[in-house]
This record gives sequence, structure tokens and C-alpha cells, in this order.
Amino acid sequence: MREVFQQELREVQDRLVEIAGLVVISIENATQAFNNSDVSLADTVIADDNKIDELTVLLDELAIQILARQQPVARDLRIVVSTLRISASLERMGDMSEHIAQLARYRFPDKVVPKGLRSTFAEMGRQDVIIATKLAELLKTQRLELADEILKEDDLVDELHASVFEKVLGESWKGQVVDTVDATLASRYHERFADHAVSIAKKVQYLATGDWAPEA
Amino acid sequence: MREVFQQELREVQDRLVEIAGLVVISIENATQAFNNSDVSLADTVIADDNKIDELTVLLDELAIQILARQQPVARDLRIVVSTLRISASLERMGDMSEHIAQLARYRFPDKVVPKGLRSTFAEMGRQDVIIATKLAELLKTQRLELADEILKEDDLVDELHASVFEKVLGESWKGQVVDTVDATLASRYHERFADHAVSIAKKVQYLATGDWAPEA
Repeated sequence: MREVFQQELREVQDRLVEIAGLVVISIENATQAFNNSDVSLADTVIADDNKIDELTVLLDELAIQILARQQPVARDLRIVVSTLRISASLERMGDMSEHIAQLARYRFPDKVVPKGLRSTFAEMGRQDVIIATKLAELLKTQRLELADEILKEDDLVDELHASVFEKVLGESWKGQVVDTVDATLASRYHERFADHAVSIAKKVQYLATGDWAPEA
Repeated sequence: MREVFQQELREVQDRLVEIAGLVVISIENATQAFNNSDVSLADTVIADDNKIDELTVLLDELAIQILARQQPVARDLRIVVSTLRISASLERMGDMSEHIAQLARYRFPDKVVPKGLRSTFAEMGRQDVIIATKLAELLKTQRLELADEILKEDDLVDELHASVFEKVLGESWKGQVVDTVDATLASRYHERFADHAVSIAKKVQYLATGDWAPEA
């Protein structure tokens, strides 16, 4: 039984790594679609999000089956329950990529953000890609220093997020109303993307150290 | 064992209803703080959100203990797993109330939205309060027609959300940049609040009908 359980846990882990890999691709493509107003790539992100959603549902079903069949307790139980939370966060990260891609799509053929903010969003996008890449690696290797790195990278995203609002609320801002709306939403989506990664990283940390990750 | 399990499930349900009740109060207060620029009430919402977060963590612990002790299978297992998801959504609803309250706080002594949008946000706030109230009632009574009603009320929130963007992107919009930012964020928070309620309502529906609620 124990061996079967370990095998099932590996299957769960493999699937989390697979979904995280798709999330990396989704934020890479979303960032590129956003920066280059690439509608066709935006459509790819939107279609790929359906795949992430499907895989998440299947993974949740597997986790529930493991709970039913293996009746894990103590740390094993917390690992399986964590899977449900991690998959929910990955699913939301895919949604954020989709939202970012959709902004590019809505505004086409116009650019989705005006010149003055393009480098900031290019940087936010790069940060989100770095974070997602480290997250996929963390889920695969369980190397906890990656969790620390994700937390630090998230600080940079928060700074960029704050700088977007400084910019649009500053006197030199010449953007149209639509630019202000887009910048506000895009910044929020990028920030939430990173937040979900932090939430997952903390869960992996807590599991490894024997504590339990609070949601708040 | 079965009787103990039923008793524990009732305890779980009571706690979900308690947290949902706090969410109703939080969105009521957030709406009032937002509409009246009431900083002291905004602070109450922010403090109360900590209480919601704490209760959510405790409820999650209880759910995990039930999984460990009772080893439920089939529908019983899905009910307990659903508890974890419902509590996560309630926790996020509390966060949205807090974000709405914080907007009022940041802009004080200025009003958080300009005249032209105040009635729209008052209406969105009212809708969110109606939805939260029906949600608390649904969790308490399991009367499924309330779930249908929540889905319908959410359509209204989506319409109001769309109308905010129509307004700020329309030619008659005279708001400052800060008003555009606030309107964008506030509208998003109100919409997400209702989305989380819909997600919970669907879980209650699926549990009752024997299906399983996908996340996406």
C-alpha cells in the first residue's frame, strides 16, 4: 500500500510539474502577445488556458481518488491536500496569463499600453516568466532555495506594480483613459500571477519544514 | 463513527455559515465605507478581514482532521474537500471587501469615485451584499434555488462591471486619472467578489446533485 501511495504521489507531482510547465509557456506567450500586440499569439494563450483548466480538473480528481483509496494521514494527507491548493493556484496563474493576452486582443490594432509604460510591462512580464520558471523547477526538484528566490522575485514585481501607479498618477502621464484602464488591469494581473506563485512556494516550504501553510 | 462524522460535518457547516455571515458584514461595511468615504469603517473592514482569515485557517485544520480521523469516501469525501474550496473562496471574498475598503482609505479625504459613477458603485455594492446574504443562507439551509438566484444576481454585477468601463471610456467621462484607476480596480473587486460567490454556489449545487464541480 505504502509503495502504491508513493507511486501515486509521484504521479501527482509529475502532473503538477506538467501544468506548471504549461503556465510558463502561457505567461511567456502572454507577455509577448502583450508587448507586440500579437493577436494570434494571444489566441494561443487563450486556447492553451483551456488545456490548463482541463489538466487541473483531472489532477484534482486524482488527488480525491488517492484520498479515498489510500486514506493518508499526517504529512501524507497534507501533501495530498496541498496538491488541491497548488493546482487551484496554477489554474489561476493560467487565468492571469489569459487576461493579459486578452488585453492585447481587445485593443488590437492599437498597442495595449502607451510608450511610457512599455519597458515597465516588458520587465513585469520578464519577472513573471522568471517566477513561473523557478516555480516549475521548485515543483520538480523540491529545492527549497528556489522558494526563497521566488519570494524575492515577487518583491520586484510588487515594486514594478507600484511604479505603474506612480507613473499613471504622475504629472507627465499623457495616456488616454483606455491606457489608464489597461495599465491598471495589466499591472494587477501581473502582480496576482506572482502572488499565486508565492502562495505555492510557501506551501512547498511549509510541507518540507513540517508546518502548515495558512491561506491568508 | 458515522454519527461522529455527521456531527463533525455539522460543525463544519456551522463554521462555514459563521464565516459567510462575517463576509456579509464585511461587504456591507466596505460598500458603506466606499460610498461615504468613511475611513473609520474602512479600518473596521480591514481588521475584520483578519478575523475571517483566522477562522478560515481553523476551519481548514478541522477539515483536514476530519479527513485523517474519519477517512471519508465517496460523497462524504467530496463534501469535506468542498469545504476546503468553499473556505478558500470565502477568504477571497473577505479580501475583496478589504480591497474595496482600502480604496476609500487611500483617497480620503477625497471621494473614491467621482459623481458620475457613484450610483453605479452603490448599485454594485448592493448587489454584492445581496449575493453574500443569499450565499450565507444557501450554506445554512442548502436550499438550491438560492444558488440559482446567486447566478442571476451575478449577471447583474457583470452588467454593472461592463457599464463602468463604458462610462470611463465614453466621451462624457470627465474623471481624473486617479478616478479612472479607482473605478477600474473597484469594479474588478466587486466583480471578483460575486464570482467567488458563484463558484461556491456551484459547488453546493454539484454536491447536491452528485456531480463534481470543476474549478475552471
